[in-house]
Amino acid sequence: MKNIKSYLQEHQERFLNELVELLKIPSISADSAYKNDVLKTAEAVKISLEKAGCDHVEICKTEGYPIVYGEKIIDKNLPTILVYGHYDVQPADPLELWTSPPFEPVIKKTDSHPQGAIFARGACDDKGQMYMHVKALEFMTKTNQLPCNVKFMIEGEEEVGSVNLSKFVKSNQEKLKNDIILISDTGMIANDVPSITTGLRGLSYVEVEVTGPNRDLHSGLYGGAVANPINVLTKMIASLHDENNHITIPGFYDKVENLTQEERAEMAKAPFSLENYKKALDIESVYGEAGYTTNERNSIRPTLDVNGIWGGYIGEGAKTVIASKAHAKISMRLVPHQDWEEITKLFAKHFESIAPKGVKVKVTPHHGGQGYVTPIDNIGYQAASMAYEATFGKKPIPQRSGGSIPIVALFEQELKSKTILMGFGLDSDAIHSPNEHFGVFNFYKGIETIPYFYKYYAELSK
Amino acid sequence: MKNIKSYLQEHQERFLNELVELLKIPSISADSAYKNDVLKTAEAVKISLEKAGCDHVEICKTEGYPIVYGEKIIDKNLPTILVYGHYDVQPADPLELWTSPPFEPVIKKTDSHPQGAIFARGACDDKGQMYMHVKALEFMTKTNQLPCNVKFMIEGEEEVGSVNLSKFVKSNQEKLKNDIILISDTGMIANDVPSITTGLRGLSYVEVEVTGPNRDLHSGLYGGAVANPINVLTKMIASLHDENNHITIPGFYDKVENLTQEERAEMAKAPFSLENYKKALDIESVYGEAGYTTNERNSIRPTLDVNGIWGGYIGEGAKTVIASKAHAKISMRLVPHQDWEEITKLFAKHFESIAPKGVKVKVTPHHGGQGYVTPIDNIGYQAASMAYEATFGKKPIPQRSGGSIPIVALFEQELKSKTILMGFGLDSDAIHSPNEHFGVFNFYKGIETIPYFYKYYAELSK
Repeated sequence: MKNIKSYLQEHQERFLNELVELLKIPSISADSAYKNDVLKTAEAVKISLEKAGCDHVEICKTEGYPIVYGEKIIDKNLPTILVYGHYDVQPADPLELWTSPPFEPVIKKTDSHPQGAIFARGACDDKGQMYMHVKALEFMTKTNQLPCNVKFMIEGEEEVGSVNLSKFVKSNQEKLKNDIILISDTGMIANDVPSITTGLRGLSYVEVEVTGPNRDLHSGLYGGAVANPINVLTKMIASLHDENNHITIPGFYDKVENLTQEERAEMAKAPFSLENYKKALDIESVYGEAGYTTNERNSIRPTLDVNGIWGGYIGEGAKTVIASKAHAKISMRLVPHQDWEEITKLFAKHFESIAPKGVKVKVTPHHGGQGYVTPIDNIGYQAASMAYEATFGKKPIPQRSGGSIPIVALFEQELKSKTILMGFGLDSDAIHSPNEHFGVFNFYKGIETIPYFYKYYAELSK
Repeated sequence: MKNIKSYLQEHQERFLNELVELLKIPSISADSAYKNDVLKTAEAVKISLEKAGCDHVEICKTEGYPIVYGEKIIDKNLPTILVYGHYDVQPADPLELWTSPPFEPVIKKTDSHPQGAIFARGACDDKGQMYMHVKALEFMTKTNQLPCNVKFMIEGEEEVGSVNLSKFVKSNQEKLKNDIILISDTGMIANDVPSITTGLRGLSYVEVEVTGPNRDLHSGLYGGAVANPINVLTKMIASLHDENNHITIPGFYDKVENLTQEERAEMAKAPFSLENYKKALDIESVYGEAGYTTNERNSIRPTLDVNGIWGGYIGEGAKTVIASKAHAKISMRLVPHQDWEEITKLFAKHFESIAPKGVKVKVTPHHGGQGYVTPIDNIGYQAASMAYEATFGKKPIPQRSGGSIPIVALFEQELKSKTILMGFGLDSDAIHSPNEHFGVFNFYKGIETIPYFYKYYAELSK
């Protein structure tokens, strides 16, 4: 691409300031208290797409938060790229662990980001990565180098399961028609080890409630004589893994894709230091399913984790009470071929079956999605690989991610097109955690790399 | 006692109003936000003792909340009764489950209290029961029928372990010198089935913290590859009971007092309907240690219950996070001969020993106390039994309680005197729960019965 480096040089400060403004809006979709901020963010995204050169931009209403759609169609005969991203963010708590306020972006240096990183909720997931595409489009339009048609679909409910996006996609197949889908909502191995995500895990997220007595009880008068919902919940959750950390839900593994020794050997080639991994997390030892390596456990194997648990007295001091109810939020990461709705049903059936007499159990599905795999012989993957090579000077490594972007599988099903996951974040960027950040280097590198994807994809499509 | 019924008749409305005023002050000792209210309550108790006829009343400073001390010494040669009670209350949460605000007392009828009950936090535990003694003293002084000396010691830290009371007792043995200690902070079987508590369980209350990774992590990227502190905590807590609901802590049962078949048969005579018990709690089945009845499980057997648990995301919606830390508050009810400090050490040692690699465990003792037994051949018990017979028209049943009043064992050790537990509450009074209440009948019956205890105790002491 002509002048990409000089254009970046000239506008980099403005690009960063624009992103900072976007990050200041607390668009937390999980918490209705932030409703107006989420809507404000959609408005800001719409304006940015117009400024970047889209011919037509609209805010599409849904039953939940709106979807910002934008397009620039230059020639019906050229291929069309659909860019997907999300403008909503994860909740910021626990706030006390942030070294600077989550919605007051600041730039600080880190070991992985010696050139500095933008610290803010959503910096990496996904406002920062989504905005790279907006700025890449700006470059291509302003310098008349846009080689194909482009459509943007930026949603506001990714962190809560994209329920309404699914409906939107199903009912707008013509509008969203495309040849390839491009998403930057994943990571790469390191700033000098580029990688492209070729697989995603599915997800089933449920909330469970265990109810014992109809009211909180005095633990002295009733302790030991009635089922304590918290003790029962811990027993039920503990029983979901056996001594080898296999998940005990009947049928859970039935459809799990088993990789060949060759595939596993190929995976094992990705640079990885267990020592650094443990050091970075300050843990003495890793933990997980017997018979699999750390990188296998968090990518090609399904998992079950409690994401939150609460019940009884959790305030200051001591209260000798037996709670009437105990709750937990539990998520399962699924691998290709596991159907999330089937797994959710298996979980509910099993969890209800293991409840002892004396308690009532309620399982409420939150959301979920299927796993996904991109074949590396797809021209979209090849175009992406060439783009990274052009800007990083080395071929990217194809990599399975442990994360989930539930709608990717849906895109394939409804829009009949593959998705290319060009992620520029790092594992150490603390997404979903306090002090989330996104490298300034990564932000600029993304803006620089994306136009090359357009270029090579257009060429390979001829 | 002459005129007790007529005196009650004449002043019952005022007695109730005075109690209501006391209940309006939210004296929650566990939450420092209520500090001024706790101190205000001490002041109110002081004034009430002066009005009731104490010659000397003082607010004794401690390192925590003060102890209100009052006395009326009529004759050094007469026996001295020490009345103990507490003016602090349990936290009121969960507030949303109260049918009326916890600190705006109202009188409502219930199945167990057809004459109405006072609904407020502390109504039964222990402001209402403590205040019966103040009003009983008022009657005896105003009608010149006080048959012996009396001392009051009303503390403000019972709900948080009476740490400073212990120091106070140890350093004021002469001031607190007495022949018998009288406490109303327990219950009776029913309004037409009077009973006296002859045993209390000990208590060990600890807080545990499990720390995994040094920060919250994305459950997709790390799930299944690192120890999830919440999953680990559930496994650790679950393992504290075996399949028979025996506690698995090594040495936990070593010193447990084992009752004879005769004693257990005697206990079994107390009227009890398992059907009504389950109905009252809306549970399908009871639950507990194999080989013991419900009444044995909550009185003569030690127990372990989680009183609170928390970790991860507990807000609205879903967050796919692996928490860095998980916490629980755990209390153990102990029986005579189990030493709470020894049990606390055994718990900590065991809990730390079962932590898997990859997590750090911290156990913090909150507070505790020893169990206690009153022999029924003690003249204090006999005087109490005669007092109930005089006012209820039937002999009370001696009963072991599952609750704990840690300082009772300390009183015996430091002051060398026995404690008589004349409790007038009912199990259904929901102490420590939303909608705590105390029967108006019980309040008046207590005021009527207590003077008889003084009378018979003085006579039996001759």
